[in-house]
Amino acid sequence: MQLLKDRIRKDGVIKDGNVLKVDSFLNHQMDIALINEMGKEFRRRFPDESINKILTIEASGIGIACLTAQYFNCPVVFAKKTQSINIDGEVYSTQIKSFTHGRTYDVIVKKAFLSPEDNILIIDDFLANWLCAARAYRHRKARRRKDSRSRYRHREGRQKGGELVRSQGIRVESLAIIDEMDPVKGCKFRDDD
Amino acid sequence: MQLLKDRIRKDGVIKDGNVLKVDSFLNHQMDIALINEMGKEFRRRFPDESINKILTIEASGIGIACLTAQYFNCPVVFAKKTQSINIDGEVYSTQIKSFTHGRTYDVIVKKAFLSPEDNILIIDDFLANWLCAARAYRHRKARRRKDSRSRYRHREGRQKGGELVRSQGIRVESLAIIDEMDPVKGCKFRDDD
Repeated sequence: MQLLKDRIRKDGVIKDGNVLKVDSFLNHQMDIALINEMGKEFRRRFPDESINKILTIEASGIGIACLTAQYFNCPVVFAKKTQSINIDGEVYSTQIKSFTHGRTYDVIVKKAFLSPEDNILIIDDFLANWLCAARAYRHRKARRRKDSRSRYRHREGRQKGGELVRSQGIRVESLAIIDEMDPVKGCKFRDDD
Repeated sequence: MQLLKDRIRKDGVIKDGNVLKVDSFLNHQMDIALINEMGKEFRRRFPDESINKILTIEASGIGIACLTAQYFNCPVVFAKKTQSINIDGEVYSTQIKSFTHGRTYDVIVKKAFLSPEDNILIIDDFLANWLCAARAYRHRKARRRKDSRSRYRHREGRQKGGELVRSQGIRVESLAIIDEMDPVKGCKFRDDD
């Protein structure tokens, strides 16, 4: 999506350790007009009327999911980090290792809000986040090698992430895929000329 | 706001300990059409064109803030819980005690995203959440008495919350004010007949 890539080039900040900061427009301060355009683009890519629910995870995914849901006329369910005393009943749960926070979260979704009949669109700000759970065990192994962490993240988070999810029969759409990034040279997007 | 009160009556669940659960439509599963109407109502109550930013706090406030921001044509900034390695630069910070999670969070906002020139609308799902920081010290004192917690929360969170914020010269608008709630009798809203 050209609008998003242009904005990442203009306002994204690349830090050492392969960290792309988009907090001025996407995940701390949020440009609502931009994210609305992203929502329309998701709808264009998923014109299927049968999508009846959008699933995301707190916190950065919620705003994108809510604005996008307007174009699908469906509710949003967001997975919650850590068990709240305010949730009862049965829950789906897993653990996610966050690179940006350096800790492991318990993540839960109330079973009542997801059913086998649902046709779900999953939305998040970075694909790498969704990979953390699936890769937790391999990650622990990789960390035994010196400086393995950032390479692991770079390679699997940005280059193999889509493949991993697709291998499970799930369609993946990314509005901007970064193949390489460098604090001096900037971002190289996958479909760049 | 009648639409919201009707929905709380229909789908809200009152648990022992003065806990109102609205997780089927507001803060776990989110009814986007309802929240859009809430956004329009906020605009109706704050027609002032000079509001140029909406501030909220992760996680439950984000969706409401983002949908509302569409009616103000302004960005959203959400305060983050816990320090992330992905945030640098100067931050505003405070601590908030969460009743629903039973823990204290560090909450931060990057200073670059709030300036003295901003005219800010603060949005959250429950007013009680915003009071926790201001009341943290008194809460610690109150807990020394048996069963003081839920009474404290009930009284200050729902009856004196608005007054506390108003006493600082801040205008407060609530879309539904609950004066009393009971698992059997349901909610009694402030402006009910």
